[in-house]
Amino acid sequence: MIILGSETDMEVAEKAMSVFDLLGVDYEINIASAHRTPERVKKLVKDSKAKIFIAIAGLSAALPGVIASYTLKPVIGVPVSGKLNIDAVFSILQMPPGVPVGAVGLDNGQNAALFAAEILAIKNKKIDRKLMEYRKRMKDKVIADSKKISSN
Amino acid sequence: MIILGSETDMEVAEKAMSVFDLLGVDYEINIASAHRTPERVKKLVKDSKAKIFIAIAGLSAALPGVIASYTLKPVIGVPVSGKLNIDAVFSILQMPPGVPVGAVGLDNGQNAALFAAEILAIKNKKIDRKLMEYRKRMKDKVIADSKKISSN
Amino acid sequence: MIILGSETDMEVAEKAMSVFDLLGVDYEINIASAHRTPERVKKLVKDSKAKIFIAIAGLSAALPGVIASYTLKPVIGVPVSGKLNIDAVFSILQMPPGVPVGAVGLDNGQNAALFAAEILAIKNKKIDRKLMEYRKRMKDKVIADSKKISSN
Amino acid sequence: MIILGSETDMEVAEKAMSVFDLLGVDYEINIASAHRTPERVKKLVKDSKAKIFIAIAGLSAALPGVIASYTLKPVIGVPVSGKLNIDAVFSILQMPPGVPVGAVGLDNGQNAALFAAEILAIKNKKIDRKLMEYRKRMKDKVIADSKKISSN
Amino acid sequence: MIILGSETDMEVAEKAMSVFDLLGVDYEINIASAHRTPERVKKLVKDSKAKIFIAIAGLSAALPGVIASYTLKPVIGVPVSGKLNIDAVFSILQMPPGVPVGAVGLDNGQNAALFAAEILAIKNKKIDRKLMEYRKRMKDKVIADSKKISSN
Amino acid sequence: MIILGSETDMEVAEKAMSVFDLLGVDYEINIASAHRTPERVKKLVKDSKAKIFIAIAGLSAALPGVIASYTLKPVIGVPVSGKLNIDAVFSILQMPPGVPVGAVGLDNGQNAALFAAEILAIKNKKIDRKLMEYRKRMKDKVIADSKKISSN
Amino acid sequence: MIILGSETDMEVAEKAMSVFDLLGVDYEINIASAHRTPERVKKLVKDSKAKIFIAIAGLSAALPGVIASYTLKPVIGVPVSGKLNIDAVFSILQMPPGVPVGAVGLDNGQNAALFAAEILAIKNKKIDRKLMEYRKRMKDKVIADSKKISSN
Amino acid sequence: MIILGSETDMEVAEKAMSVFDLLGVDYEINIASAHRTPERVKKLVKDSKAKIFIAIAGLSAALPGVIASYTLKPVIGVPVSGKLNIDAVFSILQMPPGVPVGAVGLDNGQNAALFAAEILAIKNKKIDRKLMEYRKRMKDKVIADSKKISSN
Repeated sequence: MIILGSETDMEVAEKAMSVFDLLGVDYEINIASAHRTPERVKKLVKDSKAKIFIAIAGLSAALPGVIASYTLKPVIGVPVSGKLNIDAVFSILQMPPGVPVGAVGLDNGQNAALFAAEILAIKNKKIDRKLMEYRKRMKDKVIADSKKISSN
Repeated sequence: MIILGSETDMEVAEKAMSVFDLLGVDYEINIASAHRTPERVKKLVKDSKAKIFIAIAGLSAALPGVIASYTLKPVIGVPVSGKLNIDAVFSILQMPPGVPVGAVGLDNGQNAALFAAEILAIKNKKIDRKLMEYRKRMKDKVIADSKKISSN
Repeated sequence: MIILGSETDMEVAEKAMSVFDLLGVDYEINIASAHRTPERVKKLVKDSKAKIFIAIAGLSAALPGVIASYTLKPVIGVPVSGKLNIDAVFSILQMPPGVPVGAVGLDNGQNAALFAAEILAIKNKKIDRKLMEYRKRMKDKVIADSKKISSN
Repeated sequence: MIILGSETDMEVAEKAMSVFDLLGVDYEINIASAHRTPERVKKLVKDSKAKIFIAIAGLSAALPGVIASYTLKPVIGVPVSGKLNIDAVFSILQMPPGVPVGAVGLDNGQNAALFAAEILAIKNKKIDRKLMEYRKRMKDKVIADSKKISSN
Repeated sequence: MIILGSETDMEVAEKAMSVFDLLGVDYEINIASAHRTPERVKKLVKDSKAKIFIAIAGLSAALPGVIASYTLKPVIGVPVSGKLNIDAVFSILQMPPGVPVGAVGLDNGQNAALFAAEILAIKNKKIDRKLMEYRKRMKDKVIADSKKISSN
Repeated sequence: MIILGSETDMEVAEKAMSVFDLLGVDYEINIASAHRTPERVKKLVKDSKAKIFIAIAGLSAALPGVIASYTLKPVIGVPVSGKLNIDAVFSILQMPPGVPVGAVGLDNGQNAALFAAEILAIKNKKIDRKLMEYRKRMKDKVIADSKKISSN
Repeated sequence: MIILGSETDMEVAEKAMSVFDLLGVDYEINIASAHRTPERVKKLVKDSKAKIFIAIAGLSAALPGVIASYTLKPVIGVPVSGKLNIDAVFSILQMPPGVPVGAVGLDNGQNAALFAAEILAIKNKKIDRKLMEYRKRMKDKVIADSKKISSN
Repeated sequence: MIILGSETDMEVAEKAMSVFDLLGVDYEINIASAHRTPERVKKLVKDSKAKIFIAIAGLSAALPGVIASYTLKPVIGVPVSGKLNIDAVFSILQMPPGVPVGAVGLDNGQNAALFAAEILAIKNKKIDRKLMEYRKRMKDKVIADSKKISSN
């Protein structure tokens, strides 16, 4: 389940959704703010059958940590860029010992989805194969790009 | 009500408690972690008759914001120093529009209590008078210190 | 009373003014610079009957602290963004023990007004009710936004 | 598999090992530096049957990213504190789109192990139960600490 | 005139005083806090016949700026180190256009005094000569140190 | 004498020149890079009869410090903004004990000129009077701005 | 050999290429990502006869360090700017003792090429002469720029 | 030639000297401050037959850049840690286009020497072989350390 702290985080979420679509991973998407709708976050998390949560949030990004406080499923946090950037990064990264969140880079919705897919791929050969193909395409693109610039 | 994210924040809390004792302000103190005991935070806040909350927390300090999500009472946040410092500062400061927290400086439990007392003093002449005395003593100390160093 | 350090901080002030208008909170607005017009800051603060001061300033933002040095009323500081951002944030946040300022996030005029309203609402049921409605609308917006993106 | 960039990261690794011992999770531990022994990192990762990698490193902490470049298994990165701290944090966090690493907080070996355990617990009821007990003990400790300070 | 924001800044002030003693520059020293004793700062500055002000302060170091708001004499600001350091640095450095402060480095009381002496030396040949001797001694020390390490 | 590290710093220099023109302070302006033309910097400084040097530079802004190494006249440093900002700020601010530079804020050419004028005004009544008028106009502008926004 | 972490770093590479063209230094250019194509990086480095490697990369810029892990030739790293900047800077700069990388400034492809040319010039008089001419032109440009602004 | 900005940088220089001794690289060591002894820096550099310069300095570390302004030989800069750290790092790293310095990590005298040795090894087979042995020992140490911790 992908949870956004605000509608304005949608651009980052779309990167994650594109990756899931490509890898054939099912997902659900919701907006729920740790600060504006705390009960809703709790209900979404507690009622969910999702195996993994991806939380996307900016500013004082409490969302990933609050989700992690309600579940023992893996929570992946994506800091969203703004005027400071380090506010979202450290709010998500510096969880206290005992309640883990796995953080990916600033605005990196793509890696959040890939990391989730890697987790699922431990027990799912189909996703594992798709991930291999995905990484192969990346490598091919690097080589193609390299040829293009060398021949100029 | 003073809420600490962890027992290790006690040193900062004691600065606030000393100020309240001096000003004759009643307070209650509890430990409740936004990440380890989310239900407890909610219950403490929802059941409380406190006029003001002081939340003291370090690292990814979600506590003040989570308290603010459950109440319309003023929430004062105190970032606690650690290896990074800016993690706690920005987690507390950069709340999203709509859910305010008033942040004081790093480890500055004293100012959290004084700020709370100033809020209460709007309608409480006794606390107002005590605050005046407190500030007077500060001024006198500056002048005394100044004399001491000038005469050396 | 809202005090701006400079006319260029008006955009942040307008966020605070909109919230006050919505909540039915009376306010006065002035420009007074701690550095360019120190006497004016003092006179405004000393002569004022305001219950709360909101100080909005950027760069080396001494304004909230200077106001706090002249009054025992609660002072809320709003750092205004610029080339560095952390200059205004830390100038406002890191007050010495004894003279408190409650800081809200960068450019967050909205939260300054909401925080002030929360303080007034302790003793004013009408503002308290307006705050409840305000927060309810925020929650409804989150749910409506969530529905909109889910149905796409 | 836990991989340390250097023997000096052992203190952080021990936090992870304690958690694994407590939760009954099997693990292997090795030292392999992305910069001093690149072939060794590759061989360890390629030959391993591990379901998850935990990489612990400081300074320009390339280790988690280099491991992630050789495997599609989830890689959890732990930045180790030093003179700058932000060097290790951002080296681990800011992976390019396509090759994910899930970062935990500075020196937070404990959360790396818990995050790994949460991943395994998706399909392993025994670890899931142990995690529940672990979190329960944390909650009980918060409540016990709170009673202790309130009664003083 | 040297003004300290607090007695705890004395160590930095002593570096300035040693330099003035060495150069034969007369000075007066006072403690006056911009936040705790604003009237005192104003009175000290307005009543003073000093040609230059050196303001030494930490945290949200408003002191140099507040002094500059009351005088057209040159104000030299010395940020004092603490838990963050950048709070004092940027509070002193980032003055708004129109009210200048000349900042020296963190805890660098020595350079504040030398800078003041350079200003006075424009019209005072005796101080100018003492400054030349001071710099000569520094150069000689570098050469002596260099010989010492080369011969080891 | 105003010295720019590069032609691209001209915009900041123009702010200083406008202030000098307004205050009737004579100045000379040159470009000389500490890194690209070290001999030229030395020659300009050694041959100059200027009472004060203003050095404007960005990136690793060695210019103010290098000028200060060749003269005992006051050197005012102006950091110029770029991709990092803190590179220029700290290169100028953190001079070693013994060789002072007085730093003004980022891009703040105006304050560099005003600070220089304040130094000259110690012995020059005409500049002193012009400075008074300058500050008076600033105050009047604040009051006029305040009236304008209050009446809206 | 110039190696880019990604096609998007091409703009910085072009600055290096222009300098090499000007100085008559032969070079080869390739794209190879430490994270997406680790084998390719290794093969390029191990098979290369290049005397010096220039690695240009952004984000968690492991490329220079990974190249350095495969060769004893000098590796020059160029951090590429992005949303944070300090991620690339510290990933490249903070190499562990034993595996050196020489870092140049943010986006400073020009200096990477000049630094490489200086290394080659130790044994190559032709490049040495071209470097002298290059630096001479820079000096002339500074003087010409200075004349232009002085005469305005 | 190794040049230190101050005697206090000796600890970092010793790391470089140990590496040179181990690799059989001849070196000379001097103290010369860019700010306190500019003429001495120039003379040392201009008169030197050294193939490479290593400059070690803290604070506003102008030394590497100033050396680079006087020579076309490669200059390696080593930032020395202090209260801020980023002052020395960015003063050394952010050289303007045209005058390169190759920076190594904070206090990393060892890597400065290794980088210099790599440059010399391009044309010197003996140093090249010593470097290979050095790196081999590092690898062996990693493996030995790994065995030690695994067997515990």
